[in-house]
Amino acid sequence: MTNLKPVTFYPIGHVENDFEGRAHPEEIAALETRIRLKPELAPALDGLAAGDRLMVIFHFHLSRGFELRQHPRGDPTRPARGVFSLRSPDRPNPIGVTTVDLLGIEGATLRVRGLDALNGSPVLDLKRA
Amino acid sequence: MTNLKPVTFYPIGHVENDFEGRAHPEEIAALETRIRLKPELAPALDGLAAGDRLMVIFHFHLSRGFELRQHPRGDPTRPARGVFSLRSPDRPNPIGVTTVDLLGIEGATLRVRGLDALNGSPVLDLKRA
Repeated sequence: MTNLKPVTFYPIGHVENDFEGRAHPEEIAALETRIRLKPELAPALDGLAAGDRLMVIFHFHLSRGFELRQHPRGDPTRPARGVFSLRSPDRPNPIGVTTVDLLGIEGATLRVRGLDALNGSPVLDLKRA
Repeated sequence: MTNLKPVTFYPIGHVENDFEGRAHPEEIAALETRIRLKPELAPALDGLAAGDRLMVIFHFHLSRGFELRQHPRGDPTRPARGVFSLRSPDRPNPIGVTTVDLLGIEGATLRVRGLDALNGSPVLDLKRA
């Protein structure tokens, strides 16, 4: 197969909130989270403003391996399904994609609501949703 | 800053269509595209079916560097904006995220419509949209 060489990315910043361990996505999503980008990236935010919907692409940095079929939310009473039909952080490439509400920007820091990412998660990309 | 170590991913498969060079996203999106996963990943598709909406996360493998502020679609008549407010492939981490229509699955190959990814693009992840 072609093009299956590894791809390396350099995080553009990280997530800062009060979650240090695993939690229900809903708990995290209700919280305000800060995304602290590298300061030199501030000009790349030009054109974004409070009220925008923003797609945040981040690394599930606490993910440790995966199974091809998993119980949704780890609940053994729910039938196992393929990981590509789930949002589990334990996946072949532990990439999270969440669309959030942009609350504000100060320099290279964004305040957002709705991000189900743990404190310290490396952020890989942002796109207007 | 914490957690800014590089992150390496191993593509799960690649895109196969008739586009070899850059083209308008709309042209590509109208086409049917195949996503060929590594055969051993077929069980990870369990639970997905034709008619689902699927998020495809892929590598813009032809991207060569970026500017922090860019003209939308490279059109100099449009004011330059920050790259995080654009979908340009030329971004700090050249990651594409597109939601597509799943037309069918045969083994480890998916047929989709609406994928603005060039032939050969490495695919990093799939999630039900």
